[in-house]
Amino acid sequence: MAEKMILVGGGLAGSLMSIYLAKRGYEVHLYERRDDMRQGNYVGGRSINLALSTRGITALEKVGLVEDILKISIPMFGRIMHSPEGALQYQAYGRDDQAIYSVSRGELNIRLLQLADAYPNIHMYFNHRCTHMDLDNNKATFQNENGEEVIVEGDVFLATDGAFSALRDAMIRNPRHDFSQNYESHGYKELEIVPSATGDFRMEEKALHIWPRSSFMMIALPNPGGNFTCTLFLPYEGEVSFEHLNTEKEIMQFFETYFKDAIPLMPNLLEDFKTNPVSHLTTMRTFPWVKNKSVLMGDAAHAIVPFYGQGMNCSFEDCVVLDKCIEEFSGDWDVILDAYQKSRKPNADAIADLALQNFIEMRDLVGLPEFLNKKRIEKMLVDQYPGLYRTQYERVTFSNDGYRDALLAGDKNDRFLNYIISEGLESRIEEKEFMQEKLQEWFA
Amino acid sequence: MAEKMILVGGGLAGSLMSIYLAKRGYEVHLYERRDDMRQGNYVGGRSINLALSTRGITALEKVGLVEDILKISIPMFGRIMHSPEGALQYQAYGRDDQAIYSVSRGELNIRLLQLADAYPNIHMYFNHRCTHMDLDNNKATFQNENGEEVIVEGDVFLATDGAFSALRDAMIRNPRHDFSQNYESHGYKELEIVPSATGDFRMEEKALHIWPRSSFMMIALPNPGGNFTCTLFLPYEGEVSFEHLNTEKEIMQFFETYFKDAIPLMPNLLEDFKTNPVSHLTTMRTFPWVKNKSVLMGDAAHAIVPFYGQGMNCSFEDCVVLDKCIEEFSGDWDVILDAYQKSRKPNADAIADLALQNFIEMRDLVGLPEFLNKKRIEKMLVDQYPGLYRTQYERVTFSNDGYRDALLAGDKNDRFLNYIISEGLESRIEEKEFMQEKLQEWFA
Repeated sequence: MAEKMILVGGGLAGSLMSIYLAKRGYEVHLYERRDDMRQGNYVGGRSINLALSTRGITALEKVGLVEDILKISIPMFGRIMHSPEGALQYQAYGRDDQAIYSVSRGELNIRLLQLADAYPNIHMYFNHRCTHMDLDNNKATFQNENGEEVIVEGDVFLATDGAFSALRDAMIRNPRHDFSQNYESHGYKELEIVPSATGDFRMEEKALHIWPRSSFMMIALPNPGGNFTCTLFLPYEGEVSFEHLNTEKEIMQFFETYFKDAIPLMPNLLEDFKTNPVSHLTTMRTFPWVKNKSVLMGDAAHAIVPFYGQGMNCSFEDCVVLDKCIEEFSGDWDVILDAYQKSRKPNADAIADLALQNFIEMRDLVGLPEFLNKKRIEKMLVDQYPGLYRTQYERVTFSNDGYRDALLAGDKNDRFLNYIISEGLESRIEEKEFMQEKLQEWFA
Repeated sequence: MAEKMILVGGGLAGSLMSIYLAKRGYEVHLYERRDDMRQGNYVGGRSINLALSTRGITALEKVGLVEDILKISIPMFGRIMHSPEGALQYQAYGRDDQAIYSVSRGELNIRLLQLADAYPNIHMYFNHRCTHMDLDNNKATFQNENGEEVIVEGDVFLATDGAFSALRDAMIRNPRHDFSQNYESHGYKELEIVPSATGDFRMEEKALHIWPRSSFMMIALPNPGGNFTCTLFLPYEGEVSFEHLNTEKEIMQFFETYFKDAIPLMPNLLEDFKTNPVSHLTTMRTFPWVKNKSVLMGDAAHAIVPFYGQGMNCSFEDCVVLDKCIEEFSGDWDVILDAYQKSRKPNADAIADLALQNFIEMRDLVGLPEFLNKKRIEKMLVDQYPGLYRTQYERVTFSNDGYRDALLAGDKNDRFLNYIISEGLESRIEEKEFMQEKLQEWFA
């Protein structure tokens, strides 16, 4: 008889993983706390737009969903920075054919659930909230919509229930399970740039827009409907902060000062600002990810801040790696789960660090001449020495290399760029032989 | 009517704090998960002996318990290091009149509960386990010994329920509450050195004994009964570790190799080793410590490793500081609790760091010539320039200075000692004028 896999959580990672497991012939049971979002009751409003990139695409390829998803996505080829005076500056993410894809979390989740439903060996249960997990005996307790308790036994339990995972909660009560949660001093609020009267985009749509203001920022990502989802990241307290934005006058004055060019594009600004909540940013780390036959995946294992656009991509990569471990160590779940956690933990830590670093880059550095100069030199190196020089952004976003390798490579890049600048070698970048030698010396 | 204070947890911090609050006229309710330990059913065996030092004594002075407690304690004036060959080396903790006091956790707790019981405005409830805390509405739910739910309302809730605090558990589910738990790669096991046939101590009793073995160690603290409580700190895994100590032969071989001089003093070694569990070492940090009218104290706020002997002393100091804040900001609990957490958090973080550092000192450094040389120079400085030069150990153990100041001062001491050694100034320590000038230059 096929082994029984229990997935706790039917979000992005849970629904994708259920398909991977079904393809391998397991009996899959997917329990989701909320209602079935395919019933049309999906509520947005608190989720930053997702940016699908290479790792996520690689994971979707395995289930044949890439074309479908790209059809409902908008490619973003670079960043457009808005100065306080409204001046624009463009910075490509990579080569001219490289883009990240703005996609709706809800739409993507619905497609995955639809696909999962087509597998007869996937069974879905909505409105089932996990209230207790008995890790020693592989038994989960759920409460259904009638308030009844449902006890479920299984061979393997996969925690895909997000940053506030009930399964991880049970796991970290065991000795020798490390855990940390750290909140940022910034919160965020969703706002909107609406389409024009004719339904068109009111800014360049194939880009991610940033209003960098050093200690805070606003960003905007395009949606297929012609609108942009804007997110304001701002400290909770302090001179310029959410605590001082209460009256309509305060809110408008703040936008006049910092985001003047956006005001005409945001007719619902005041209403949105007053209605939408301030949400929180947190990084969560834990280890081990495994206890007996239960395993953490996605945000349950590694909740990260959204500034590298890698939350979903990292979670999807978890699915890819676990699937590979299942293939490699067929049947032996102790070995499978241990190989998975050992492979993923250093990479999860690295992307958590990279995401925190990128917040500083996005809100502050992208506005500075020294930073733009470095990016210009990097672009020259990438264009003229492809393969010999690779940016950190490219490794994280447009490759399937380990995040940890990308983190280390990025540090090395930075030392190399400082060397080029301090030694005044910028003018010699075009000298092929000289530069190839330097690059080989540093990066071979 | 007097405000109603609810203490969740009747351990050391809880029982002491209840007396402080009673003295101020509050109506105090103390709920304890376990049975009343005064009924004679106190179970030891998993708690490292406590070392009472200046902060703890200061806290007990306020309730008039010092004399009583010192009577059931044994002063330890220094460390005695045991080499693998059985050679002994003594190192004083401070001046000849400065000692730390080995005391039984159970005995101390019982005296505090007895004293608390004498206050008519203290009400105690044993066998009451906190199962839920409603922080927003100041309501705690307990389960009593009959399995019944008891819901308790109060004006202020004090979490004195230890490292696995139920109240903290509720608190960290709120946004913007940071939390971390980190386990050491070492566990510990309690063993025993028994008294002689005539009931006498079989080693020097006015000292803390250490068998430092660089990556692991054993320590022994004297008890009034003539025995020593030994604690073996050892990695869980690896070449020399608990995982390889299973058979009697393995255990004896390990002791023959590393603790040969102790074997004749430990007739119950094998039985103790096989019976007593391996316990865990963890550091827990969190912030804020306050939510609405609930506040964390002691291990619930800051669980630390035991290597500086400050766990209890730090928790008692929490009580002293909270009591001072109550006095200073009479009646305004929002101000009281905020002043308390702001004063204590940096000091709790500092003693957590110091305790981790001291593990390395105790198991490794105390055996090294360079370390002993530094300690010798420090002793010369302390003896000849009292007040001008103060050791970190003295600040932590024999003063009520902030832990954070002690941590910073210790780092500075270390830089100064390195300077003395590298400049070859050791021979000039006796030159009063020269040395006073140097010390003033560095420490004034």
